[in-house]
Amino acid sequence: MKVNAESIWGDLEKIRKKTPLIHNITNYVVMNTTANALLALGASPVMAHALEEAAEMVQLAGALVLNIGTLSPAWVQGMHKAALRARELGVPVVLDPVGAGATPYRTRTLHELLDGTGLGIIRGNASEIRALVESGATTRGVDSTAAPEEALQAAQTLAQIECCTVCVSGAVDYIVAGEKIFRVHNGDPLMTRVTGLGCTASAFCGAFAAVNRRYPEAAAHAMAVMGIAGEMAAERANGPGSLQLHFLDALYNLTREEIGARLRVEP
Amino acid sequence: MKVNAESIWGDLEKIRKKTPLIHNITNYVVMNTTANALLALGASPVMAHALEEAAEMVQLAGALVLNIGTLSPAWVQGMHKAALRARELGVPVVLDPVGAGATPYRTRTLHELLDGTGLGIIRGNASEIRALVESGATTRGVDSTAAPEEALQAAQTLAQIECCTVCVSGAVDYIVAGEKIFRVHNGDPLMTRVTGLGCTASAFCGAFAAVNRRYPEAAAHAMAVMGIAGEMAAERANGPGSLQLHFLDALYNLTREEIGARLRVEP
Amino acid sequence: MKVNAESIWGDLEKIRKKTPLIHNITNYVVMNTTANALLALGASPVMAHALEEAAEMVQLAGALVLNIGTLSPAWVQGMHKAALRARELGVPVVLDPVGAGATPYRTRTLHELLDGTGLGIIRGNASEIRALVESGATTRGVDSTAAPEEALQAAQTLAQIECCTVCVSGAVDYIVAGEKIFRVHNGDPLMTRVTGLGCTASAFCGAFAAVNRRYPEAAAHAMAVMGIAGEMAAERANGPGSLQLHFLDALYNLTREEIGARLRVEP
Repeated sequence: MKVNAESIWGDLEKIRKKTPLIHNITNYVVMNTTANALLALGASPVMAHALEEAAEMVQLAGALVLNIGTLSPAWVQGMHKAALRARELGVPVVLDPVGAGATPYRTRTLHELLDGTGLGIIRGNASEIRALVESGATTRGVDSTAAPEEALQAAQTLAQIECCTVCVSGAVDYIVAGEKIFRVHNGDPLMTRVTGLGCTASAFCGAFAAVNRRYPEAAAHAMAVMGIAGEMAAERANGPGSLQLHFLDALYNLTREEIGARLRVEP
Repeated sequence: MKVNAESIWGDLEKIRKKTPLIHNITNYVVMNTTANALLALGASPVMAHALEEAAEMVQLAGALVLNIGTLSPAWVQGMHKAALRARELGVPVVLDPVGAGATPYRTRTLHELLDGTGLGIIRGNASEIRALVESGATTRGVDSTAAPEEALQAAQTLAQIECCTVCVSGAVDYIVAGEKIFRVHNGDPLMTRVTGLGCTASAFCGAFAAVNRRYPEAAAHAMAVMGIAGEMAAERANGPGSLQLHFLDALYNLTREEIGARLRVEP
Repeated sequence: MKVNAESIWGDLEKIRKKTPLIHNITNYVVMNTTANALLALGASPVMAHALEEAAEMVQLAGALVLNIGTLSPAWVQGMHKAALRARELGVPVVLDPVGAGATPYRTRTLHELLDGTGLGIIRGNASEIRALVESGATTRGVDSTAAPEEALQAAQTLAQIECCTVCVSGAVDYIVAGEKIFRVHNGDPLMTRVTGLGCTASAFCGAFAAVNRRYPEAAAHAMAVMGIAGEMAAERANGPGSLQLHFLDALYNLTREEIGARLRVEP
């Protein structure tokens, strides 16, 4: 497994060419921005949560992205049904454990989703990843109260238990799978002042997994593209309003050269 | 019936003067952008889906717009109730069959909405319009996999069966009613990279129908204004992020002269 | 109680330093823009409506903001549960009575929320505030059909009955509590062409109440910051699309000097 400008560019070209359908069961806050970011990346988003169609929609999809940001029982049912069908079909499943630890309901729902969903990638902030592993760890809402390195051990434990790739995003993004760790240093602090860019990162994990079944690579590619487009946007922005606009424009126009010049990944 | 710069401008001035209330029962992804586009056009949007108030809200409305993008049973019930009241009151009803053919649930729901709703205008992409008529036609998600001209015959059949105006949007927009066909050539391919502009087009069909009961004209006016504002925005944009911003600004400032200089409609 | 540039700046610095969690149970249309505005202001937004977690989430919050824009029974249940817990804990509660008077369901739901919720601040447009007090007053959808001064008496009655602060927003914002009235003259008419800026104002009332329990001051501070950022944005904007972007950027960068130079408040 390797992550470099060529491997990122190769996957990005595949996404732009194949326009994989990414099936999102996600929260109300970010649906619009997630859809726009997937379109700017080159993928084709669909949002469909109803129990009546969740399984059928996933049959058309290149990846399924589950995000519990504004969860309620009916939506969680749709997630389980879609995830079950995804597992049967071998469709990659990404989980974004938004607000894990903030309320018992979130933590309980997440543990049910972890049980036997056959997740490919879990992406969360440091507080959320810790809350999935350390009983008693708590989050204050949906913004992280810990640095990503503080969640590294939790990420390794979670990756081992769930046999999946775990991505802890923050100032540095850690992508953990077994003994392997990628560290992505791209990004800009202003990105934390735009709602839902973490959710976008999870959706991008889905888009890259749709064209690359080596999930640690796919997740690292997704985080690198997020970070590179985000730092390009931050350089042009006067604040979080203009960052959002420039982020979509930068994604849409992202070139091999820009990736090569900006990528900061270890190892 | 005629569609030219004067007829478009006349209706646009009516919308700006009367600010008709447009009642949308629509999907979560586009609610914000639909509301903003209706405000920029000059109309007054309201979103209200609950069975408890759907009928009462439609009494205040100049048009009702139904969009099944993120459908679920409770919302569909609200749609039926609102549509029934709209028919009693003579309020124009527009249907956007998002993702028709993608899942059996969508197709089934759409056929129930078609039965006796008394639709004024149906607007969809080519895949969706075909899926409403051709059993076995399928869509991959919510983006079209066919060119609009491939759906022309389906549109004519649908318009005849439902006694309504059918609009197939795409590189060229076809507005079909009986023997009549308008073709609108305005627009820009970058518009397909912004989520929900199709849904905005449906909402605009509602806004124009609120001031003009000749539905083929209303639909053609809506598509022309969409396309003109969209191509003006695309000229100023660096990507899909900035397109969205310039689209709203162009709509808000749209002049009679800009419409006259840019309109490309047949016949 | 006083409202001046120093008092506003003092509260704004507290928000930026403490980043209070603002728990919103709000409508689908504005969730994204409300979250972004709270982040740009310096607060930390969370949206959580489910009965299963509404009470637990409010325990983490600095304020609770209830907004009935796209209400349905399950959401209203979540609002009641969260409000009850907020009252037990002394967490400030803000109510935005979107579309009060438009349908009997809205009016009925609002009266249930008023009964014993222990509201700190009610913020609405003139039509909505009147509909809460004057039986028979009606709204046409969610946009106001009355000037704010026409609702001044209704606001005073409502403030007295509910023992809370009432804010009527419009060309001039009136903040009423007991005998006290603040008038905020900041803002720009273009703000009415962007959906959800009223909802943002309510969320800001929550953010300021989280750091200042003198609710009339908190509400006046919120409206002043809205108006100042809004007029700065309008000066830079070409229409409602760019206004939205500049509004977030202006909020994020807002300085003591800008507040001092622009504030227009009475008395």
